[in-house]
Amino acid sequence: MDIEETAERIRTGDRRALARAITLAESSRADHRERAEALLAVLLPATGGSVRLGISGPPGVGKSSFIEAFGSRLIEEGHRVAVLAIDPSSRVTGGSILGDKTRMERLARSPEAFVRPSPTGGSLGGVARRTREALLLCEAAGFDVTIVETVGVGQSETAVADMVDLFLLLLPPAGGDELQGIKKGVVELADLVVVNKADGDLLASARRAAAEYQSALRMLRPTTADWQVPVLQVSAREERGLDEVWQAVGRFRAALGEAGLARKRAAQARAWMWSEIDDSLIRAFRAHPAVAARLAEAEAAVSEGRQPAATAARELLAAFLGRT
Amino acid sequence: MDIEETAERIRTGDRRALARAITLAESSRADHRERAEALLAVLLPATGGSVRLGISGPPGVGKSSFIEAFGSRLIEEGHRVAVLAIDPSSRVTGGSILGDKTRMERLARSPEAFVRPSPTGGSLGGVARRTREALLLCEAAGFDVTIVETVGVGQSETAVADMVDLFLLLLPPAGGDELQGIKKGVVELADLVVVNKADGDLLASARRAAAEYQSALRMLRPTTADWQVPVLQVSAREERGLDEVWQAVGRFRAALGEAGLARKRAAQARAWMWSEIDDSLIRAFRAHPAVAARLAEAEAAVSEGRQPAATAARELLAAFLGRT
Ligand SMILES: Nc1nc2c(ncn2[C@@H]2O[C@H](COP(=O)(O)OP(=O)(O)OP(=O)(O)O)[C@@H](O)[C@H]2O)c(=O)[nH]1
Ligand SMILES: Nc1nc2c(ncn2[C@@H]2O[C@H](COP(=O)(O)OP(=O)(O)OP(=O)(O)O)[C@@H](O)[C@H]2O)c(=O)[nH]1
Ligand SMILES: [Mg+2]
Ligand SMILES: [Mg+2]
Repeated sequence: MDIEETAERIRTGDRRALARAITLAESSRADHRERAEALLAVLLPATGGSVRLGISGPPGVGKSSFIEAFGSRLIEEGHRVAVLAIDPSSRVTGGSILGDKTRMERLARSPEAFVRPSPTGGSLGGVARRTREALLLCEAAGFDVTIVETVGVGQSETAVADMVDLFLLLLPPAGGDELQGIKKGVVELADLVVVNKADGDLLASARRAAAEYQSALRMLRPTTADWQVPVLQVSAREERGLDEVWQAVGRFRAALGEAGLARKRAAQARAWMWSEIDDSLIRAFRAHPAVAARLAEAEAAVSEGRQPAATAARELLAAFLGRT
Repeated sequence: MDIEETAERIRTGDRRALARAITLAESSRADHRERAEALLAVLLPATGGSVRLGISGPPGVGKSSFIEAFGSRLIEEGHRVAVLAIDPSSRVTGGSILGDKTRMERLARSPEAFVRPSPTGGSLGGVARRTREALLLCEAAGFDVTIVETVGVGQSETAVADMVDLFLLLLPPAGGDELQGIKKGVVELADLVVVNKADGDLLASARRAAAEYQSALRMLRPTTADWQVPVLQVSAREERGLDEVWQAVGRFRAALGEAGLARKRAAQARAWMWSEIDDSLIRAFRAHPAVAARLAEAEAAVSEGRQPAATAARELLAAFLGRT
């Protein structure tokens, strides 16, 4: 099928065409990548129309349950919701959301939702690129809320924050010492903090945790910003607090403004281009025969203090650029 | 003077030879850089013998006063102390420490201390490289405590943390909302938090602030680590608490262990080599005529959503690698 026809099918909401296009974007085969890029180039004018939400939080906090409840609520309101995942560990597990299918049953069945597990294999950079492209494809297919979930291993939260309009951090109803699962710097990425499981016996500790998070945030975020990060409480299980989350998303978008959002997305696109360039440059560098032949020895010499780092770097660069 | 002779002078503690070598390392002239690298290569076996401390904190917290008091105390104990600075804003101000000379009077006069302002000009990466090299030169000159200070603009704290054994964050005697000066993620770099100005009227708020910081840290750092970040209180003015800081430094080194320290430094050296390579690759990329000719249009196309980021990156890469 030619590119234009596939693009048209995606634009008119053909789910199988969308799924196949994402599969192409995820492929490591050069001809697949090329086709995916061509498709994306055609569809680009149809993208940008969704509220892009990133959601992260420690394992077991209830990300899947929250997305199921929140996404279902949005669909009741007339939205169309796409859920994508970034899981850098997916090389091993085969994707976190897949195993969660049961916890997103309603979404998985809804014609107004599209749930896609994390692409398997590859570096975080590669996974992030493919998820970005999947997000754009979902927008072209008319989904007006796109949710990118990550389980939060290492740098994946930053990758997610760099592709969404708003980054929501989901936290458990227990503050202080029990927040070990949270990685360095993640709290500071959050535009919105949501304490889940504010129900039953956990209600009181959820309230305490929210207060603790709020004071930690005050210490970490300048008060001068346009946006004060709110700490909300929800129960995914009892489906409470979900509308408040959506309202906070709306307030955040309003605070950004049209122009602010456009600037943010333009900066993200440029940063994405540069991270692609960085990745490719390093890959080309490592693959260069003259570099490959010397790299191990250079790293050893630098590690053991036999050669200054700058000297080793300069020599490898010269080899790469063909000056030796 | 030949390299060997200069190296010998530095090793035997000739301060003018050391100062000149650092000036060479800071120079952007290719022949100077070459000479500096050659010198460093000769001196490398004489490096590694210092306790490397990074110190950062918001403007006015008392970094200069603390280093003056702390460094003087160490000298009384028989140490030799070198103080270097990283100040990414130094392009404009001409270096932060220079203007502070008055606040490091004792150190500046002491034959057992060496105070060097931040190299002026250039990118943070460039400044960081030169400071690393200055640190190694100071070690070769027999300084057994090296302190790298940064005023904490943007990413400079990370650059400092990446070149020292221990990163000390100096904080004011006021927690909560007043901690606006602290940049994202910096608290999480700290191996040791020190509240300054714990004296006079400020004693009570210093104590309160220390407690607040301690609880914020509990929320940010996993309790499972080998090292619990201590929060100490000092007064640089009244020279109190300084021995406790030095003891904490010793405990940190002991917790790392000889092998741990060697591993940390080897990893830092490798990371330094890679950051040099990254910087140089990007510089070569931007300077390539075929890239330079297209870059502005590519960035605009990506920003405005006219071209997918991956496509723009691929095309620029092909131009750089001579494939178009
Ligand atoms: N009490 C209560 N339990 C909840 C709530 N949301 C989720 N849970 C429970 O928490 C557990 C984990 O929920 P998940 O939705 O799988 O959490 P997750 O964050 O997706 O977990 P991973 O995918 O493993 O990282 C399950 O046992 C849920 O039933 C809630 O709002 N209240
Ligand atoms: N009460 C009290 N004041 C202090 C103490 N240490 C420094 N100060 C005062 O705090 C002010 C700033 O001190 P500096 O040492 O210049 O602080 P700094 O962090 O180096 O400042 P910048 O270099 O501008 O970032 C001065 O007025 C000092 O006298 C202390 O221990 N107690
Ligand atoms: Mg899950
Ligand atoms: Mg100062």
